[in-house]
Amino acid sequence: MFGAILENVRIKRPLIHNITNYVTVNDCANMVLACGASPIMADDAEEVAEITALCSGLNINIGTLNSRTISSMLFAGKRANELNHPVVLDPVGVGASSLRTETARKLLDEVQFTVVRGNISEIKTLASGSGTTKGVDAAAADKVTEGNLDPIIALAKAFAVKTGAVVAITGAIDIVTDGKTAYCIRNGHAMMSSITGTGCQLSALTAAFVAANPAAPLEAAAAAVSAMGLAGEIAYQRLTPLDGNASYRNYIIDAIYHLTPEQLEKGAKYEMR
Amino acid sequence: MFGAILENVRIKRPLIHNITNYVTVNDCANMVLACGASPIMADDAEEVAEITALCSGLNINIGTLNSRTISSMLFAGKRANELNHPVVLDPVGVGASSLRTETARKLLDEVQFTVVRGNISEIKTLASGSGTTKGVDAAAADKVTEGNLDPIIALAKAFAVKTGAVVAITGAIDIVTDGKTAYCIRNGHAMMSSITGTGCQLSALTAAFVAANPAAPLEAAAAAVSAMGLAGEIAYQRLTPLDGNASYRNYIIDAIYHLTPEQLEKGAKYEMR
Amino acid sequence: MFGAILENVRIKRPLIHNITNYVTVNDCANMVLACGASPIMADDAEEVAEITALCSGLNINIGTLNSRTISSMLFAGKRANELNHPVVLDPVGVGASSLRTETARKLLDEVQFTVVRGNISEIKTLASGSGTTKGVDAAAADKVTEGNLDPIIALAKAFAVKTGAVVAITGAIDIVTDGKTAYCIRNGHAMMSSITGTGCQLSALTAAFVAANPAAPLEAAAAAVSAMGLAGEIAYQRLTPLDGNASYRNYIIDAIYHLTPEQLEKGAKYEMR
Repeated sequence: MFGAILENVRIKRPLIHNITNYVTVNDCANMVLACGASPIMADDAEEVAEITALCSGLNINIGTLNSRTISSMLFAGKRANELNHPVVLDPVGVGASSLRTETARKLLDEVQFTVVRGNISEIKTLASGSGTTKGVDAAAADKVTEGNLDPIIALAKAFAVKTGAVVAITGAIDIVTDGKTAYCIRNGHAMMSSITGTGCQLSALTAAFVAANPAAPLEAAAAAVSAMGLAGEIAYQRLTPLDGNASYRNYIIDAIYHLTPEQLEKGAKYEMR
Repeated sequence: MFGAILENVRIKRPLIHNITNYVTVNDCANMVLACGASPIMADDAEEVAEITALCSGLNINIGTLNSRTISSMLFAGKRANELNHPVVLDPVGVGASSLRTETARKLLDEVQFTVVRGNISEIKTLASGSGTTKGVDAAAADKVTEGNLDPIIALAKAFAVKTGAVVAITGAIDIVTDGKTAYCIRNGHAMMSSITGTGCQLSALTAAFVAANPAAPLEAAAAAVSAMGLAGEIAYQRLTPLDGNASYRNYIIDAIYHLTPEQLEKGAKYEMR
Repeated sequence: MFGAILENVRIKRPLIHNITNYVTVNDCANMVLACGASPIMADDAEEVAEITALCSGLNINIGTLNSRTISSMLFAGKRANELNHPVVLDPVGVGASSLRTETARKLLDEVQFTVVRGNISEIKTLASGSGTTKGVDAAAADKVTEGNLDPIIALAKAFAVKTGAVVAITGAIDIVTDGKTAYCIRNGHAMMSSITGTGCQLSALTAAFVAANPAAPLEAAAAAVSAMGLAGEIAYQRLTPLDGNASYRNYIIDAIYHLTPEQLEKGAKYEMR
């Protein structure tokens, strides 16, 4: 199933509109290209509706939001909704400031998202107001473990039902759910958290996967999460003793570039709950 | 000829002012450094005229334009014209939105460019309003091939005459013309299109080459286009089976860093039409 | 001493708020992660005070300043002062435009900095108005050599006394002083100047080191400067004949990722004056 989803990305080469932060934007663009899709970044209010109309998917990331780009996010999201384009939300650092929390809430109120992807602290903040956000990384107190997996799946499912979106919580164990079915994905490597923007890159990748598989957003989001984790595993194998987080960053994008549908099909580690 | 042009860049080390997008700006800066020149990025309307006056070349790229930076592009372009500094325009994604199209036209109306560099869809849009822009990449329908090379050279020459600028259309076959002579350059590798911003990097490189060779903008632009393609070839040779687009990106910049005048002279593949 | 300082960074993992330029921001984030700290980038006036309060250090870099972000720098700096958080200033390109010079002066007037780090031209401009700024790189005329080391140490000390900040002048020979003691550091490699943003990365690293060692800002800043230089040496050793400035950039971040307290203790080359 995940293999066929990746194959659709390579065949359809969807054009993805990204309104994203200036920290990890280059990696997001190269990640979208690596998977076989095509990125365009545009964030001015005067053009975002037009740009989104040209594309087949939209990725909204609030990593370095400002008053100018918040309006653009709302315009583009609404236009994508009118056109029935899939829209991904990455609520980077929500809970770290009122501006982020209010913006994420406003986006969720005014735009119908196809997928909301964040770390556990971000999703907890949005779902229940209780996340312990420590900047842009999940707080240790919120960490998903085998021990607390069931209540977190329940939280993710409830938030998916509430928002009508597929919810993806990523971390050591990833949870992707549409409110009924939950994929628990165990791909990835701990060292991924020492690279800036693996989450942002995954959100961009998710937008590409969902845009190429519009009838199956749950499976497409789960495939993207699994592919990113698998790329982290493959890239980790490749590290030499001198390679650190900068080389690892490149190797993960490289791994997505070379990832075959068969490799993803075989390497995906997940169960359904 | 191209060798001597590169040598001038290494000797003169021109300072290049870039008003460019936030997606590929880091690669543009490292590319300018790789060729032996020095980059400065500054886009606030209050300082661009002063910054441009310090430099010997200006590179304007509309990749993530917004109302604030559009004014800065106009200010800087006009100041560079007053000072007789070469100015390069990279009309990224022109045709994809009215804002991009109107901004590019306004820039072309109010600033005298030395070089306009874009893909075929972008240049067609500017020259005749007929480009089939698909985001920031050239549309398949517009592709330059051996079969349609002559009419596209004619279009490029006519646009060069109209704008008074050297026009560079880059893709599988590159065309660089001042309206009289056209260089058809066959350096490069198809995999370059799987990296974000090879076009942006080339525009920054072109600004450096033209700034160091102000009396020969046609040859300098052609040399930059050829150097970038040659770097793509050299970097491709270096790829291991695990290297993908992220490593390739680094290797291309590395190849420009090590490119010698002799290598460029020998490796440049072009004919004149 | 420097070893213990690095160890504190790895143990405390301070969260560092960066208001920085969009050219080198990704490298700054990966550098902060490489040393064991955690970065957050946020530059909207509505959220910077809150974000800074969450963090334990602030890094202000004026590399691509604009009217919107200048206000944010002032808000964040003042808030950090109220909270007694260390604040680093990187006055990129000060002297290259009135906007940069006035902004740097305004920041120095209204915010108490813990460390001011720049190249010799930038610090000369701030200290005496006499720097010969050539864009964002130090001018050749200003270069620190064994011959002019004493007067430059005197200038750095006087500026440290005047600002109440540790002053770090980095280049071939680095000077770090609190006005009484000056560390002269001879780590590093000339090729570092062919990478964009090694200075920016060092400022971000310095913020992490100072945040983890708040009682010893002079030693922490000197340790960061030495660590960055040592990483440049280690990374240079690793270069293959095809590696250029892009690979070197990655290797330096990788070297910080792997740098041990023992390595830093042993590899640091400095004297006190």
